Amino acid sequence: MTAPDINSPEEQARYRRGSDVLNAVDGGAAPGVMASLADIAPALAHHIVAFGFGDLYSRPALEPRQRQLVTLGILTSLGGCEPQLEVHVRTSLNVGLTPAEIVEAFIHAAGYAGFPRAINAISVAKKVFAERDLLPVEET
Amino acid sequence: MTAPDINSPEEQARYRRGSDVLNAVDGGAAPGVMASLADIAPALAHHIVAFGFGDLYSRPALEPRQRQLVTLGILTSLGGCEPQLEVHVRTSLNVGLTPAEIVEAFIHAAGYAGFPRAINAISVAKKVFAERDLLPVEET
Amino acid sequence: MTAPDINSPEEQARYRRGSDVLNAVDGGAAPGVMASLADIAPALAHHIVAFGFGDLYSRPALEPRQRQLVTLGILTSLGGCEPQLEVHVRTSLNVGLTPAEIVEAFIHAAGYAGFPRAINAISVAKKVFAERDLLPVEET
Amino acid sequence: MTAPDINSPEEQARYRRGSDVLNAVDGGAAPGVMASLADIAPALAHHIVAFGFGDLYSRPALEPRQRQLVTLGILTSLGGCEPQLEVHVRTSLNVGLTPAEIVEAFIHAAGYAGFPRAINAISVAKKVFAERDLLPVEET
Amino acid sequence: MTAPDINSPEEQARYRRGSDVLNAVDGGAAPGVMASLADIAPALAHHIVAFGFGDLYSRPALEPRQRQLVTLGILTSLGGCEPQLEVHVRTSLNVGLTPAEIVEAFIHAAGYAGFPRAINAISVAKKVFAERDLLPVEET
Amino acid sequence: MTAPDINSPEEQARYRRGSDVLNAVDGGAAPGVMASLADIAPALAHHIVAFGFGDLYSRPALEPRQRQLVTLGILTSLGGCEPQLEVHVRTSLNVGLTPAEIVEAFIHAAGYAGFPRAINAISVAKKVFAERDLLPVEET
Repeated sequence: MTAPDINSPEEQARYRRGSDVLNAVDGGAAPGVMASLADIAPALAHHIVAFGFGDLYSRPALEPRQRQLVTLGILTSLGGCEPQLEVHVRTSLNVGLTPAEIVEAFIHAAGYAGFPRAINAISVAKKVFAERDLLPVEET
Repeated sequence: MTAPDINSPEEQARYRRGSDVLNAVDGGAAPGVMASLADIAPALAHHIVAFGFGDLYSRPALEPRQRQLVTLGILTSLGGCEPQLEVHVRTSLNVGLTPAEIVEAFIHAAGYAGFPRAINAISVAKKVFAERDLLPVEET
Repeated sequence: MTAPDINSPEEQARYRRGSDVLNAVDGGAAPGVMASLADIAPALAHHIVAFGFGDLYSRPALEPRQRQLVTLGILTSLGGCEPQLEVHVRTSLNVGLTPAEIVEAFIHAAGYAGFPRAINAISVAKKVFAERDLLPVEET
Repeated sequence: MTAPDINSPEEQARYRRGSDVLNAVDGGAAPGVMASLADIAPALAHHIVAFGFGDLYSRPALEPRQRQLVTLGILTSLGGCEPQLEVHVRTSLNVGLTPAEIVEAFIHAAGYAGFPRAINAISVAKKVFAERDLLPVEET
Repeated sequence: MTAPDINSPEEQARYRRGSDVLNAVDGGAAPGVMASLADIAPALAHHIVAFGFGDLYSRPALEPRQRQLVTLGILTSLGGCEPQLEVHVRTSLNVGLTPAEIVEAFIHAAGYAGFPRAINAISVAKKVFAERDLLPVEET
Repeated sequence: MTAPDINSPEEQARYRRGSDVLNAVDGGAAPGVMASLADIAPALAHHIVAFGFGDLYSRPALEPRQRQLVTLGILTSLGGCEPQLEVHVRTSLNVGLTPAEIVEAFIHAAGYAGFPRAINAISVAKKVFAERDLLPVEET
């Protein structure tokens, strides 16, 4: 059994493809996460980009706004993923979901995952929206 | 403390509003669940319709296809919700998500909730798609 | 599909009923949560009160102390719900559960949800009990 | 490091104490589980009885009906614990919770853990209640 | 954004590397899962092999028996992953974990994830062990 | 029903056995947790030691490094157990798992529980490794 060398030309090509996708959607939200992995688990950072973005996120069957709705649903119901939810609230804004749509995904989640998970997700969104001067959110 | 009488005119009006939403989106997938609650928890059936559909699902900030994407993400990552996932795969088809989009939501979930949750959700979709003669799913 | 106007007389009546229940049980623990939702998801705050307290909590089949035991069990095992657990430790005290009963619910949870979830819940209780000068808890 | 011999007099005494508690509350619901562990993990069966019932359940700070409410909350929100939930619906009836109280615990859980978990728990209760001719459940 | 063509030479090479790892450890337990994905999500099957086994499982920092211990811990505590747990009990036997070690991982999990998750995992192991005539398991 | 007196000679003997195991593996990481329980749930602290370490951890079927791999898998996938994960990263180092093995358990978890859980676990490890001057971790 041998694992791929993440510095090989083939893996670097995979990384670049993933990196292009990531840059197209996240508007600079993710680099902090990636940098924090550099001295402890660089291979995980590589695979998040190469597999998560290059292989999965790049697939055309769902467009980025749709993927973000799925992601917001997942991260809300998993619980304990506030750091990732913060990244994905930023990404959601960046790909064009409105603040009202993001909040609505969390309100919707209340019915399926309960009020506590919904409240925790909205707390994360509130922090991001406050930084970007997006409060108050106008309900439709 | 008194709870509302679910047979009062006000609650029946709320129920009808929710029922209209439910009928508009689920294409007949939910009645079995509601009927099964009738002799044990009719108030829960009432609230699923009046609150879940009348109060939450009816909100215009997300359209039904978007809500279904959030729902598929939630139910996949919660785990152990195969019966609800089956209902929502049917509802997703009914509101216009394609089989490829539904499957893609589950593939996307693999990165955030792991392969086992994704595989379990796809098993549910496969059962529904087989009944409706929607296999094989053409990947985009 | 139209969602109810949360400012309509009917919804305001539902809200008042829920608010009466909430005030009767929480002893002032919840307003902070509700206020924090005001500029981002006022409809969620409305539904937590109108549905969560007005429709569910108000039901007479369980009295408040019994509901709090169920709630403590749920929040402990969900994990990642420390903010909600803090509110509900306060509510539990307010409706008459003793510190020893609250702690016992968490010790009991160790067998069903494992030691880590139990320890996390007890950490939350400890914070609340310390503020109220309820430590040490006398074991029965 | 040496583990205790579960057949030692000390451990057998612990087991008997737990077994007395178990027999007092479960009305014969648990032996099937214990028997199924005999040829694969007898130590786990021992510890469930000696620790779970002898050490935890026996504690006087909560009475059995209260413990069952906590347990129903935990098992509902964990998800995927239908076999254990079935045992504990039986135990709950045996210690004196009414069918309406058991159902109410699950309806209450809808607000904190979402409708799917509540529906799954009620499905388990329905099976047990049907076997005992306890349907329909009269709502209070 | 373009996703990789899973039939390209580069991806087929990645697939073969993963497939070699999978064949080396699973002893034929996984093909059923892979085949079931062929007409609905072939890309997911590709990525489970290419990424899950080729990129992750192949890494030398843990040997297969160690990876299986981590995997058994994860699947037990996630809950609702009985089909995957069955595959991984077989894989665990195949890479050299003894029945007693596998059972011990589940008993150990009782302390961290609670008795219900441990019991459910042991039920899966019992089914596999029965098929392979490995019962009773001799406790060490 | 009577619970055991945790100060009885029998229980103190059980506690000492567990304490010996705990001291042998944790290298001083756990006392803080135990001390924090002293004024609120001393019985839980007793049972964590007497049952968790004396009855479970002491069993010879898995050696400490193996148990830690199972534990790291469990705590990663449960989510929201960062305090316990921190204790167990320290314990893992203490029983002889290398930093690279600990990190690898978390990278491995990405495939089964998703990237967010893996990243959260690695963040905890990074904090512990930084304190012990173990960064950067050399990947094998």
